[in-house]
Amino acid sequence: MAPAITLYACASGPNPPKVAYLLEELGISYDIKSLVFGEGDENKPGVKGASFLKINPNGRVPAIVDHENNDFCVWESGAILQYLAETKKGGDKYIGGGHGNEKYEVLTWLAFQISGHGPMQGQVNYTKLFFKNYWNEECQPSVVKRFENETYRVFSVLESRLKAQKQAGSDYIAGKNYSIADMSFHAWLRIAAFPGLDLSGYPTLKAYMEHMEAKQSTQAATKKIADACK
Amino acid sequence: MAPAITLYACASGPNPPKVAYLLEELGISYDIKSLVFGEGDENKPGVKGASFLKINPNGRVPAIVDHENNDFCVWESGAILQYLAETKKGGDKYIGGGHGNEKYEVLTWLAFQISGHGPMQGQVNYTKLFFKNYWNEECQPSVVKRFENETYRVFSVLESRLKAQKQAGSDYIAGKNYSIADMSFHAWLRIAAFPGLDLSGYPTLKAYMEHMEAKQSTQAATKKIADACK
Repeated sequence: MAPAITLYACASGPNPPKVAYLLEELGISYDIKSLVFGEGDENKPGVKGASFLKINPNGRVPAIVDHENNDFCVWESGAILQYLAETKKGGDKYIGGGHGNEKYEVLTWLAFQISGHGPMQGQVNYTKLFFKNYWNEECQPSVVKRFENETYRVFSVLESRLKAQKQAGSDYIAGKNYSIADMSFHAWLRIAAFPGLDLSGYPTLKAYMEHMEAKQSTQAATKKIADACK
Repeated sequence: MAPAITLYACASGPNPPKVAYLLEELGISYDIKSLVFGEGDENKPGVKGASFLKINPNGRVPAIVDHENNDFCVWESGAILQYLAETKKGGDKYIGGGHGNEKYEVLTWLAFQISGHGPMQGQVNYTKLFFKNYWNEECQPSVVKRFENETYRVFSVLESRLKAQKQAGSDYIAGKNYSIADMSFHAWLRIAAFPGLDLSGYPTLKAYMEHMEAKQSTQAATKKIADACK
């Protein structure tokens, strides 16, 4: 049977896994199309290639095509997670029940991940690992430090939050259940060590990340993306 | 009568106005509480002060307290806009009708603004205008250039999108109507000149921004925030 959803991904990048985690949880069939950076060519299509720009004019992954909804395209991980959680069977559970205050608690933490956490940790990656390739010089140490500091500040907000949630009886970042906000944070926390960020000063956060890593759904999603993007 | 909503804002910063634009459109009564940067004191409370951290543990504005919903707190502009659009009378209009594909078109562009546009333009502000105050040295020119380039890349995505929308009969970034995605982009586009970003190469985007500036709701919101945060 043809898959319900096509998910566009790259070999690296923390955002496509977020979507795969939810697809696994929901038991939705999906195939993964692997894209390279740049324009690519016919054999290896790229995120900035003409055919993908018709799906996402911003030329970034993830994006999905929903074959059960007239090939409707959604891009931006935060929007895709919400689309799937709100429109697919069983999805409400992952977005605070789908209405009421718990939904907006989930959306608040989701928005913080995509706007406050991801972009800052992403700049740590860029300034420490990729800057020199693009600009032929090392990145100024104070610039690297600025993004490391801000990422660690976010970690400390998460550490305090998770402690408070534990006291309230929840193992998750928002509300009572595993949600699309957890999927978003997890996808970035799991690659924190990549540019040398250290979670050891944040024991509750580290344990949370390991809890997310142990889920069957996140393991299956990670393997499928790795296999598809070899 | 006591206001329905309290909106926390600072004198500068593009995100609180997004929320005020929607409150004006919806005709919801609100008061604005002005916060300073840092911890502040009893007379001038700050975003990192103990009392505000109870409302937003991330210590950023905007945040709202909804007095018509047991003083429920929402923070992150993207989450607040969605909360108000989905739960307040007349709000559906600003979120693609509240369901169906047009809703997720709005949420896609909203997510792009809060995660892809705001953080990059914000770094242009930081590296060009504030970096030296914090780090006692000028920011490396290639770092500034990296964030300028990425912001202009976003502008070119918006320019193409707005042209395509015009051909499809819409003056707005997503769907047929003025939405929370427009409110988000407008709040940042209107301060593009602050660090010297130039919209003149993006005529459709510039005209769009002026169209948003001319709305009575955006003018009223801007004035209220300026008056409250004097």
